[in-house]
Amino acid sequence: MNNYTIETFLRVETPKAWVTAAKAEIPLLLVDHAHCEKKAAATALGLINRYSDRYELLKKMATLAREELRHFEQVLEQIKSRGEQFHPLAPGRYAASLHRHVIAHEPKKLIDTLIVGALIEARSCERFQVLTEVVEPELATFYRKLHAAEERHFLTYLSLAQEIAGIDISDRINFFAEKEAELIEEPDEQFRFHSGAPPSTVAIPA
Amino acid sequence: MNNYTIETFLRVETPKAWVTAAKAEIPLLLVDHAHCEKKAAATALGLINRYSDRYELLKKMATLAREELRHFEQVLEQIKSRGEQFHPLAPGRYAASLHRHVIAHEPKKLIDTLIVGALIEARSCERFQVLTEVVEPELATFYRKLHAAEERHFLTYLSLAQEIAGIDISDRINFFAEKEAELIEEPDEQFRFHSGAPPSTVAIPA
Repeated sequence: MNNYTIETFLRVETPKAWVTAAKAEIPLLLVDHAHCEKKAAATALGLINRYSDRYELLKKMATLAREELRHFEQVLEQIKSRGEQFHPLAPGRYAASLHRHVIAHEPKKLIDTLIVGALIEARSCERFQVLTEVVEPELATFYRKLHAAEERHFLTYLSLAQEIAGIDISDRINFFAEKEAELIEEPDEQFRFHSGAPPSTVAIPA
Repeated sequence: MNNYTIETFLRVETPKAWVTAAKAEIPLLLVDHAHCEKKAAATALGLINRYSDRYELLKKMATLAREELRHFEQVLEQIKSRGEQFHPLAPGRYAASLHRHVIAHEPKKLIDTLIVGALIEARSCERFQVLTEVVEPELATFYRKLHAAEERHFLTYLSLAQEIAGIDISDRINFFAEKEAELIEEPDEQFRFHSGAPPSTVAIPA
């Protein structure tokens, strides 16, 4: 079983142009972030519903969902303290594009879903790290705390995937990690927490 | 605005025959209870998804969902410590029968949904109280803690309903409380945490 870190799990770093866009889009970033925390809790609850015979998964997903909901509350407070409002927002392409590659039959479906979960948490963790260096101090402190939590969640998803599979899953991890890298590096019309390269930074053919 | 307590909110007490059945069905009671906690979290998350413009509701439902998930984990531990297993279980008629009366258009839909939430929490609270008197000491201690939490949740739902309505909603509360009382007193084929009177206790016509 491979021991991954965020750095060895993710294939590419967040593009600098995304960080530049994020600095100019803090209110939108916070609203999308709140939606991400809420959806992460819903995803964990979905796994609890589907896999009621897996005790370790139930316990770990319930704990994870509670933490995501706590973050949701904290992001709402950040939004409110800035005089902004939480509002509905169309999701970006990122999570749906990854889930599209999940095999439809068990037990592979579960393993793939857990690998996707690990990737989303790992990318969130990496983005919080990058953001702490460019946002105002109060928000940086908040992102630092979230960074630590997302790192734990990444390991929760990854260790569950490895334990449940019971065999080496590094090929499947490589497959999803490459798809994830494409979503991060390819141009993306929408700015979101997990979006790709802002389109203005992509060379337009003459 | 009326100040309700569990006692003035619920129209009827749990039938003695249900308590007798519960004592003989602790493993089933625990499994259904775990499902109820999980569904309570999912219901709160559903409200968060539908009413993203209501800041107070979002915060309160996120906190409530976290507590329900913590209870879910604790009930799982109770199930495991007894050498039993959590498993899928068809839900009882109770919650679905109450939700059937929720008006389909806003803002009444939200008010009705919150009143139903308050009733479910109030009944859970009342049943935990009754159960503490008949189950083994360790389980009684656990139920006592849950009793206090469900009482807070009852007040959370009720105060949200009253605040959001902004008018007296006692007629609507009365309507749902009467429907709830029927579900508790009428014979119920299935034994569940929120089930009605066990059928064996109902007089069979000669």
